[in-house]
Amino acid sequence: MKAVCIMSGGMDSAVCAFIAKSMYYDIIALHFDYCQRTMDRERQCFNQLCDDLNVVQKIIINADFIAQIGGNSLTDLSLTIRENALDNNEIPNSYVPYRNGIFLSIAAAVAQRYNAQALFIGVVQEDSSGYPDCSEDFIHKIQAAMNAGTGENFTIHTPLVHLAKAEIVQKALELGVPLDHTYSCYQNNDKPCGVCDSCLLRAKGFALAKTQDPIIK
Amino acid sequence: MKAVCIMSGGMDSAVCAFIAKSMYYDIIALHFDYCQRTMDRERQCFNQLCDDLNVVQKIIINADFIAQIGGNSLTDLSLTIRENALDNNEIPNSYVPYRNGIFLSIAAAVAQRYNAQALFIGVVQEDSSGYPDCSEDFIHKIQAAMNAGTGENFTIHTPLVHLAKAEIVQKALELGVPLDHTYSCYQNNDKPCGVCDSCLLRAKGFALAKTQDPIIK
Repeated sequence: MKAVCIMSGGMDSAVCAFIAKSMYYDIIALHFDYCQRTMDRERQCFNQLCDDLNVVQKIIINADFIAQIGGNSLTDLSLTIRENALDNNEIPNSYVPYRNGIFLSIAAAVAQRYNAQALFIGVVQEDSSGYPDCSEDFIHKIQAAMNAGTGENFTIHTPLVHLAKAEIVQKALELGVPLDHTYSCYQNNDKPCGVCDSCLLRAKGFALAKTQDPIIK
Repeated sequence: MKAVCIMSGGMDSAVCAFIAKSMYYDIIALHFDYCQRTMDRERQCFNQLCDDLNVVQKIIINADFIAQIGGNSLTDLSLTIRENALDNNEIPNSYVPYRNGIFLSIAAAVAQRYNAQALFIGVVQEDSSGYPDCSEDFIHKIQAAMNAGTGENFTIHTPLVHLAKAEIVQKALELGVPLDHTYSCYQNNDKPCGVCDSCLLRAKGFALAKTQDPIIK
């Protein structure tokens, strides 16, 4: 049984892929480059994780069109990534328009092409920045759409969707995920900024799990 | 009011865009290059149609990843495009895995970015090769998915979905669509092959509408 695992190089999608592995899926690892600020570091982590997971196939998609469409602070350097602002309930400008919809649609094409039965995506609904394309409702609906549009019967697995970040860290430790091969910062390639939403959420997870994050020196 | 119109350069999507125009939408024209055999000719037609329609914005997306994923005869030159085979009910190898799902997902991102309210796609359900991503059921489901995943309230218009090809030709004549600026062949850039599904469907439409196709010399 094969599963297409969308893997950014971040912690959540890494844990998600290790969960797929623990379910005995053969993993087709799918990564997207889209000129995001931390593209190089994320791709490096993705490649390391592919080795760790012993994936059967590795696909890197050039999704530069996401930066072409723009309207988000991960690809548009003229926008400022908000800092120390996790309590703000507005959807931040780090929201990339319909990114997970695009990623899952391409993943569906890959799944159909290579006869995979399942897709895995590491969306987190609650302990997050509130992006609409991370909700369970969205996932149910896009699963229905992709099955109608491909004639297949894929299942999208979202094992993290209702987990808190600390539970994700805990899961990573249980499964032996090499967390030093993951990266979450929105801003810097070399060293986590510590103040973007993604760094703050990750730090909160490690603090509550009472564990040291190996990428923080 | 703005609408994102997915336009391949083919007859159906051209008519669809002219319908959007007749509804007084400002048109954001969206085209995809994906290393298909007739990419150059289709892009040329798209550019001509953009002028004809006086679009407010023109976006050409590099979707080479579709050829990278492969598994279809439009991008894979080692596969043979079936000829004179319209009566065969199998889904032909010209089906590009989940192409319309991918196109509509990217269109949703464009619509959100530029505050469009509507999307137009020229899918045809019956008088077609039977691709699953051309059905009305699929369109309903992907509309639900994209609205959940963007937090928007887009409407996907499919004015051709239940039309026969002859009715599409008729509609084109009514609306003054410059049909010499459209191209439908799957195989050749220079001259329609006349035997692929797309040429056969187009020829049938013109024959039943008792009209000469201007691209056939």
